[in-house]
Amino acid sequence: MADLVVVGAAETKFGKLDGSFRDLAVEAAVAALADAGVPASQVDAMYLGTFSPGTFVHQEHPAPLVASMLGLSHVPTTRTENACASGSTAFLQGLMAVASGMCDTVLVIGAEKMTSTPIEETTQILAEAADWESEALAGATFPSLFALMARRHMHQFGTTRDHLSAVAIKNHHNACRNPYAQFHREITAGDIAAAAMIADPLTLYDCSPVTDGAAAVVITSGERAVDLGGDAVRVLGFGQASDSLSLFRREDMTSLTAARKAAGRAYAMAGLNPSDVSFAEVHDCFTIAEVIATEDLGFFPHGEGGPAAFAGETALDGRIPVNPSGGLKGKGHPVGATGVSQVVESVFQIRGTAGERQVANARVGLTHNVGGSGATCVVTLLGK
Amino acid sequence: MADLVVVGAAETKFGKLDGSFRDLAVEAAVAALADAGVPASQVDAMYLGTFSPGTFVHQEHPAPLVASMLGLSHVPTTRTENACASGSTAFLQGLMAVASGMCDTVLVIGAEKMTSTPIEETTQILAEAADWESEALAGATFPSLFALMARRHMHQFGTTRDHLSAVAIKNHHNACRNPYAQFHREITAGDIAAAAMIADPLTLYDCSPVTDGAAAVVITSGERAVDLGGDAVRVLGFGQASDSLSLFRREDMTSLTAARKAAGRAYAMAGLNPSDVSFAEVHDCFTIAEVIATEDLGFFPHGEGGPAAFAGETALDGRIPVNPSGGLKGKGHPVGATGVSQVVESVFQIRGTAGERQVANARVGLTHNVGGSGATCVVTLLGK
Repeated sequence: MADLVVVGAAETKFGKLDGSFRDLAVEAAVAALADAGVPASQVDAMYLGTFSPGTFVHQEHPAPLVASMLGLSHVPTTRTENACASGSTAFLQGLMAVASGMCDTVLVIGAEKMTSTPIEETTQILAEAADWESEALAGATFPSLFALMARRHMHQFGTTRDHLSAVAIKNHHNACRNPYAQFHREITAGDIAAAAMIADPLTLYDCSPVTDGAAAVVITSGERAVDLGGDAVRVLGFGQASDSLSLFRREDMTSLTAARKAAGRAYAMAGLNPSDVSFAEVHDCFTIAEVIATEDLGFFPHGEGGPAAFAGETALDGRIPVNPSGGLKGKGHPVGATGVSQVVESVFQIRGTAGERQVANARVGLTHNVGGSGATCVVTLLGK
Repeated sequence: MADLVVVGAAETKFGKLDGSFRDLAVEAAVAALADAGVPASQVDAMYLGTFSPGTFVHQEHPAPLVASMLGLSHVPTTRTENACASGSTAFLQGLMAVASGMCDTVLVIGAEKMTSTPIEETTQILAEAADWESEALAGATFPSLFALMARRHMHQFGTTRDHLSAVAIKNHHNACRNPYAQFHREITAGDIAAAAMIADPLTLYDCSPVTDGAAAVVITSGERAVDLGGDAVRVLGFGQASDSLSLFRREDMTSLTAARKAAGRAYAMAGLNPSDVSFAEVHDCFTIAEVIATEDLGFFPHGEGGPAAFAGETALDGRIPVNPSGGLKGKGHPVGATGVSQVVESVFQIRGTAGERQVANARVGLTHNVGGSGATCVVTLLGK
């Protein structure tokens, strides 16, 4: 594959923020360009991953809006949307734009502004990422779809409440060490058991929150990165795959075929195996999703993700640290920003600048970003 | 540039249709694959350009939905959005995916389902492609923004009511010869003058309609096209550019800088000049937009597009036929489908299969797709 590198990475604080959609996107982009040492005049194209700014903040056509605020001079600029995988999708378009030879330096932004929308509308908006005709119209929401997966995983493999709780406890623990995270509060198994039931067996603490935020990276060729002289991180491989939007059309509810396919493509492109991965940022929109992710990515056999999380194998100092950033559960989940934020965290880890949450020997990082209940999955592998 | 070709092209009838969003996208895609002689199993990736399915039909995350309905096997699939230029944006991502070497054969679809939404909501949804904070919230709609451009063009260059009417009359005339078009009815200058005033000076007949429809093309490399043995059309060049979303931030209201930049890039890539173009499919969302387009693309000097249209220079048998398909005005404007439909029409023209609306000696075709009031523009050049 082409020699592609990330030369700049930054994100805003995640949480309930004062900034507007456009403010957050600009803030992350300006910081990423500064980190790269690339002036706006040298950006050849911009991609903006965002899920639903039309419904959240009445703003479609956001890519040229943000580009012109950044002072990018009439460059090609495009929004990508793949539900919660909108950000990583933008990242992949940026990679292909450089690989195609059409662009030298590309800015990729992921952003979402969610908290200015009344919460009862937010669940409805998010449900539009499911199959409207066969799922959302029938009353299914994302917590309920993932609850079905959790129940089946429990039934088939003996996954327990404690296994799921271990994921949330770990991710809150890691988030306490991430200044960009929405939550800076340790939680206990007791907190989780006492929390409101959202969709049985998932309580409030099994669910990622509603979040505002943005993240941005600058991509270029390895050759240009040498000229820039910064701390570049290589794209070792990437893969994307799709599946039916509706859960009931899939063969198996305990694994995401799109994740297995995307990971397989990324590993093949990089010439790496799961055992080569130092840490992973995975899409824990719900605790069960992280358990399934660690199985789909080949870190654990199918059905053994729950016990592995409970045994601490995915902790910061475990065999394969998962979500050192705090993940969607602890860091927050501004939908369109998440996929780019996973790349940002991976860059920080591989550079060794992740502070209190630094993974030891972080040589190869994996990102895993899921859209909807698994109809889109993007996996990337990053390293030195 | 890489040797990129379109090997399959098709579209649905445009109009107020019974089919749902997903039905229309699938119908166009199946027909394009059949035209290409490419089975679904040989598609490596799919791009879907669509503006606002979340607000129009409550369906975000549409790309994997359509891909799975088509039986595409877990391929990477992505939605692109750039307002009314969403379709051409998808086409460009498809071109870059093949040029990057990541994909061999890519399916590109543009689709929009607009007529199931109450008409009073439709104008509101479309206004979200303008700058919500500085334009839409202040009451500006797209007819009003283009009316401002028209007034300025009239003031500065002496463009008249008759000049604008000539565009609508021609495009309805051409649409009568296009079986896919929404309108099959000739109109007169009297009809236009007698029609309801929408935003002075634009009457109902200066405005493109609300439309359902979809269009699709299959892209591959020149090498693979030889194996397929069909009637391939080459991509000679393409360009995309952006501008501020809000009209008041631009230097000039009588020209779209993004269109001039995009055209310049496409001409440079192809090594062609405006005089080499045999016909053009341009973005006549309003009659004034076609006048400005023919100037921005270099067919006529700045300010002389109106008289040229009135003199018949853009007619089917004129010096440079513009919108032989009937354009957005006559063929209809299903927002996300339009950019892909322009490519489809160009393929038909260059193949010589455009029937009653066939342009003589159609060797080089140009497409010009605009998002919003000009914040995005994509230009492509196609030929043998």
